[in-house]
Amino acid sequence: MKFSRIVITAVAFVLLLSFSAHAEKVRWKLAMTWGPTLSPFTDAVEGMAEMVNEMSGGEFVIRIDAANKHKSPFGVLDMVKLGQYDMAHSASYYWKGKDIALLPLTTMPFGMTAPEQYAWFYHGGGMELMQEAYAPHNVYSFPGGNTGNQMGGWFRKEINSLDDLKGLKMRIPGFAGEVLSELGLAVTNIAPGELYTSLERGTIDALEWVGPGMDIKMGFHKIAPYYYTGWHEPATELQFIVNKKEYDKLSDKNRAILTNAMKLASYNMYIKNYHMSADAWSKISTEYPHIKIMTFPDTVIAAMKESNEKLLAEKSKDSPMLKKILASQHKYLEKSREWTKMSDYYYLQDNIEE
Amino acid sequence: MKFSRIVITAVAFVLLLSFSAHAEKVRWKLAMTWGPTLSPFTDAVEGMAEMVNEMSGGEFVIRIDAANKHKSPFGVLDMVKLGQYDMAHSASYYWKGKDIALLPLTTMPFGMTAPEQYAWFYHGGGMELMQEAYAPHNVYSFPGGNTGNQMGGWFRKEINSLDDLKGLKMRIPGFAGEVLSELGLAVTNIAPGELYTSLERGTIDALEWVGPGMDIKMGFHKIAPYYYTGWHEPATELQFIVNKKEYDKLSDKNRAILTNAMKLASYNMYIKNYHMSADAWSKISTEYPHIKIMTFPDTVIAAMKESNEKLLAEKSKDSPMLKKILASQHKYLEKSREWTKMSDYYYLQDNIEE
Repeated sequence: MKFSRIVITAVAFVLLLSFSAHAEKVRWKLAMTWGPTLSPFTDAVEGMAEMVNEMSGGEFVIRIDAANKHKSPFGVLDMVKLGQYDMAHSASYYWKGKDIALLPLTTMPFGMTAPEQYAWFYHGGGMELMQEAYAPHNVYSFPGGNTGNQMGGWFRKEINSLDDLKGLKMRIPGFAGEVLSELGLAVTNIAPGELYTSLERGTIDALEWVGPGMDIKMGFHKIAPYYYTGWHEPATELQFIVNKKEYDKLSDKNRAILTNAMKLASYNMYIKNYHMSADAWSKISTEYPHIKIMTFPDTVIAAMKESNEKLLAEKSKDSPMLKKILASQHKYLEKSREWTKMSDYYYLQDNIEE
Repeated sequence: MKFSRIVITAVAFVLLLSFSAHAEKVRWKLAMTWGPTLSPFTDAVEGMAEMVNEMSGGEFVIRIDAANKHKSPFGVLDMVKLGQYDMAHSASYYWKGKDIALLPLTTMPFGMTAPEQYAWFYHGGGMELMQEAYAPHNVYSFPGGNTGNQMGGWFRKEINSLDDLKGLKMRIPGFAGEVLSELGLAVTNIAPGELYTSLERGTIDALEWVGPGMDIKMGFHKIAPYYYTGWHEPATELQFIVNKKEYDKLSDKNRAILTNAMKLASYNMYIKNYHMSADAWSKISTEYPHIKIMTFPDTVIAAMKESNEKLLAEKSKDSPMLKKILASQHKYLEKSREWTKMSDYYYLQDNIEE
């Protein structure tokens, strides 16, 4: 009897050990707004999942579903909210129709550059405001990769005046879309996978996407060769959305692994897109000589700024949370821009040939 | 007999389990060039160690020794090489007297800005060149935190001409030190903990340290109130040095944890120092009105550039590895600066009031 009791105990012990090891395994699902090969957006997601897998020794595994799988590029916030996915990768300003307070957490026209905005997120109260804004949606939101300063978009014809803009149908998301609406454009957002077809078929006359690193591969220049410099998205930060309950349930270790992996993936994408843009830009003049690099006329920029200021005041009245975020960003922009001017800007002035 | 054999087997099994769990624990020691409270340099190190601890669930612990403990701020490379420490935190250009090829891995006068340089490290061949340069020293080197664009330093008197610079004793490390030597200054490097005393006692007449976030706390302005904008360190990247044998011995999981934690700590410091500088800068005019913000005259900048070009050609002859790194940096700077100009620079031009 004693003998068999020991055998049973030993077997139970081994079973318990293997069970407790098994119980620690975490398997998550992530839904992306993007298709499966949209580098560097997808690199940010795959890089994050790979880091989580490696750093957890295979104990925390995240499966990635692209938009062609889940069929709902702009439904990912809802799917995470409802627990159909544990997390998602998207951009906060896509939710402006659902909740206007979520708009400024991506980028703002005439707003902060990437280092200024990262400093705002991590040291200027941005992260706290982001969680406050997302609390009603039952999710956490984290920076998910910065594109850096974006180009102003592709147009079929040269823009010489405000009149040339009026009536144009353009794909442009975020607050910039509001600003251009105000200037008489018909503004829309279109899922990334449908951009080229929409431009080709004339559903839209113009679009902005990201910058040379991503745009040229899409082929927009074949239809709309006028490529304008940016004013509207100085530091577009994508986002990881995480289901609150699932995140809170993680062990301290897994939560640290996931949180650090998301943060590092965000910085990594900023640098990767910088590289991709620099690389593509250096080939434009030789490989794509028919692309015409343009800047908007001063009168157009002035009108955009005016419309931007007007809308900031107007929209703030609609939502106390939006007002709070815009005020915090405005204050931090003023402070950090003075330092940017004194450091990188003056330095570049001395070291750039115009 | 059978009974006792089972008991012994069970006990052995439990012992083996607890032993194998114990064997996985890794305890490392890190030596910093800095004192214990030199934020944000020390934050980068503490942040890295904390991430490693949390992400490993306490299985990988790194003890940090500041310079007041190990007493050898500039001896940390040797201590890691010899295995007295597993890793260190310092700056690659401090080793220029030991190995000139290690100099450009921190920053270069008139060189790349932080995003350009990170892109070079991670996508332009920089990391591979860094490991090649450090291989003879038996260590790996990793980016360890960027200060962003540094200020040109503190001077007792206004610098109106090259003659005002001649004969000045100045603390300035790296290639910038070589450049100023060429212009007739007596250049030296001094451990961070002794900077203020050296300036106070007249061992040096001038010094550059980092930027407003770190400098003002040091009190240099009380002795040398002329504060010049930067030309010499556009993106100073500190470094983690890791003993090769110890790094290679880590499990895949611990190696991933350490590597990602170092990389994230580096970006985190860049953003933290951006914030600290912006914050300090915004208070200068009200709290330190006697600090005089200056830019070097055009003639001085031109002479610095000329001396820089001349020395780049000269020093390259001394070391094939230095030549290789400088050539790679030069090529990447040319490419990435065009994109910086088209994106952030033009954007800032439109959005900065001069």
